[in-house]
Amino acid sequence: MSTATPEATMPTSATPHEPSTPVPGSTTRSAAAARERTAVLEDLIARNPGEYRVLTGDRPTGALHLGHLLGTVGNRVRLQNLGVEVFLIVADYQVITDRDDAGDLPATVREVLLDYLAAGLDPERSTVFTHSAVPALNQLLLPFLSLVTVAELERNPTVKAEAEAALLRQKRGISGLLLTYPVHQAADILFCHGNLVPVGVDQLPHLEMTRTIARRFNQRYAAARPYFPEPDALIAPSTTVLGSDGRRMSKSRGNALELRATEDETVAYFRRARTDADRVITYEPERRPEIANLLQVGAYFTGTSPEVLADEVGSAGAGRLKTVVTEAVVEGLRPLRARRRELASAGPRHLAEVLAQGNARANAIADRTLDDVRTLMNMRY
Amino acid sequence: MSTATPEATMPTSATPHEPSTPVPGSTTRSAAAARERTAVLEDLIARNPGEYRVLTGDRPTGALHLGHLLGTVGNRVRLQNLGVEVFLIVADYQVITDRDDAGDLPATVREVLLDYLAAGLDPERSTVFTHSAVPALNQLLLPFLSLVTVAELERNPTVKAEAEAALLRQKRGISGLLLTYPVHQAADILFCHGNLVPVGVDQLPHLEMTRTIARRFNQRYAAARPYFPEPDALIAPSTTVLGSDGRRMSKSRGNALELRATEDETVAYFRRARTDADRVITYEPERRPEIANLLQVGAYFTGTSPEVLADEVGSAGAGRLKTVVTEAVVEGLRPLRARRRELASAGPRHLAEVLAQGNARANAIADRTLDDVRTLMNMRY
Repeated sequence: MSTATPEATMPTSATPHEPSTPVPGSTTRSAAAARERTAVLEDLIARNPGEYRVLTGDRPTGALHLGHLLGTVGNRVRLQNLGVEVFLIVADYQVITDRDDAGDLPATVREVLLDYLAAGLDPERSTVFTHSAVPALNQLLLPFLSLVTVAELERNPTVKAEAEAALLRQKRGISGLLLTYPVHQAADILFCHGNLVPVGVDQLPHLEMTRTIARRFNQRYAAARPYFPEPDALIAPSTTVLGSDGRRMSKSRGNALELRATEDETVAYFRRARTDADRVITYEPERRPEIANLLQVGAYFTGTSPEVLADEVGSAGAGRLKTVVTEAVVEGLRPLRARRRELASAGPRHLAEVLAQGNARANAIADRTLDDVRTLMNMRY
Repeated sequence: MSTATPEATMPTSATPHEPSTPVPGSTTRSAAAARERTAVLEDLIARNPGEYRVLTGDRPTGALHLGHLLGTVGNRVRLQNLGVEVFLIVADYQVITDRDDAGDLPATVREVLLDYLAAGLDPERSTVFTHSAVPALNQLLLPFLSLVTVAELERNPTVKAEAEAALLRQKRGISGLLLTYPVHQAADILFCHGNLVPVGVDQLPHLEMTRTIARRFNQRYAAARPYFPEPDALIAPSTTVLGSDGRRMSKSRGNALELRATEDETVAYFRRARTDADRVITYEPERRPEIANLLQVGAYFTGTSPEVLADEVGSAGAGRLKTVVTEAVVEGLRPLRARRRELASAGPRHLAEVLAQGNARANAIADRTLDDVRTLMNMRY
């Protein structure tokens, strides 16, 4: 965890900006089980997509990059297009869990929205909303906080890692908002009865807290007929994308290729990408992570596998690989970038409408859920 | 703190059910300063009552008793009648900070409302609302949690004492709701820009947290023009009331005289009251706490001082004192009890209307405050 930045270690309310490396001591034991379960779920989703509601989202800390598309956003669009109902939270309050200055949030939220829509998220089918706009969702935090102990919150691997990092960094402890973060996440997921959460394996402990809260709420207040679902983890199919410096792609590291970048910037970006000294291109993720990463990116956009792409390039070497990948990315992102430019040039009104519509939908659902929760808790007077 | 029950150690969102004995290690140093400040404030209030807004309240754990009237409720009515705007929170979520079973909340809330109205709180001038009914108030918890560290929360004397007691009692740590309690309290007070909070001296650290949050919010988000007031503590003028067993009056100890009790119950209650072996009645709170308590209660209802009352009874002894106090209480509570019976017999509709009106008023204010907070935090999209 020592090399991880806040963006990397601190997932959004539901999923991280990008899947991070596993937290030491986290539930690696259950990772295999979660992967198996994911295979079963994918089969069920394909047959009955209407029975699933996904909650996922991002912290608005900047425009999205290639790592988001391959790690999370592409998967969300896939699920939406399969017929799954997708709820996307723009977790603006999460930006201040670990920093004092949230930057220009309206600008950042706008960029994230542009990326979502350009990537294919359809506001008629998916619900995009901001965390700060849904009071009834946020109120769920209070009953949910009564269902967990402080010790349980402190055991959460992300909270623990952040607490250690915070102490090292500034000799100031973590904020109350960071400690309670797994509970906000439970509220984000459960307010809309989300039953499916795409996560990286390192986020399994987070989801476990949501499942625990749902279970305890049901036991205490809805024993006769469980009210909240215990959501399932859907392990993201894609791999981690490395940045131009060979480390995980992250805005805060300055090693990211933003989705909104121009073609020239894309070409320049891959020219800088790290490779290695071996002439022949092979797909060996452990031994040759940078080459493997380029192969994965190229394969994603050409619809092939990294192994096949490696065979195709073979002894033509890293230069040729870079050319192939650059072309694949430029071509692959062309429609997304065209849509993005179109949306951006149409002015802010459309984006504001999309958000207002999503917020209205989220509020209607949250109001209903909070009303049910009041009834179940015997708080109707 | 060892003898204190949860009711005693765990104040409501704003004030305790009853003033408790000072927490060891709490801000006794500042108690004297707070008392001095209270004297200044009382003078300012008398001259400009319209400039003050009080936030206070109770956890709905049962009907109110004599200790509430003398400790908190009477003072609230006094402030209301001086022209101060009083906000009264029925802190239903606080009931589950330290217990799993909240009991029959609708019945308890109804009893508390009856007590408030019977004691003279006027719903046209004061705003009575339930914590669970005001989502925008509760959402303030999130930005406020970002302004305090976990270490600061853990240092709060009530949280600390409860944590120790919880460990002793059930080997289970405190809930997240209890740890974050001082922050809920800040939201309860600041959502309506409360600038005056009646507290016992042991609640000063709580209010200090609210003041810290207001100050930090202003520094970070409203540097040009402070948005939240830093509320002042108004030290309650009344003394602690002892129950029939000589310990502090508390519903959970079963030693309380409820305001709704009948005359016969009142007579029987004081017949059981503890006295001591000294024949002559004197007012010596330290040496003769039970006698002093009876004198204080009698003096409260007859509008005299405990010293004068002691002189009046003198060598007639404890039996005569009990008769005098019983008569004073029966007479003193007669109008309250008559109003209470009238309200109770009028059926639930009036109470529901009072609460609906209070909740609507609290929501209108909370929505406006949350809207301002979103603007100040640059969260308008």
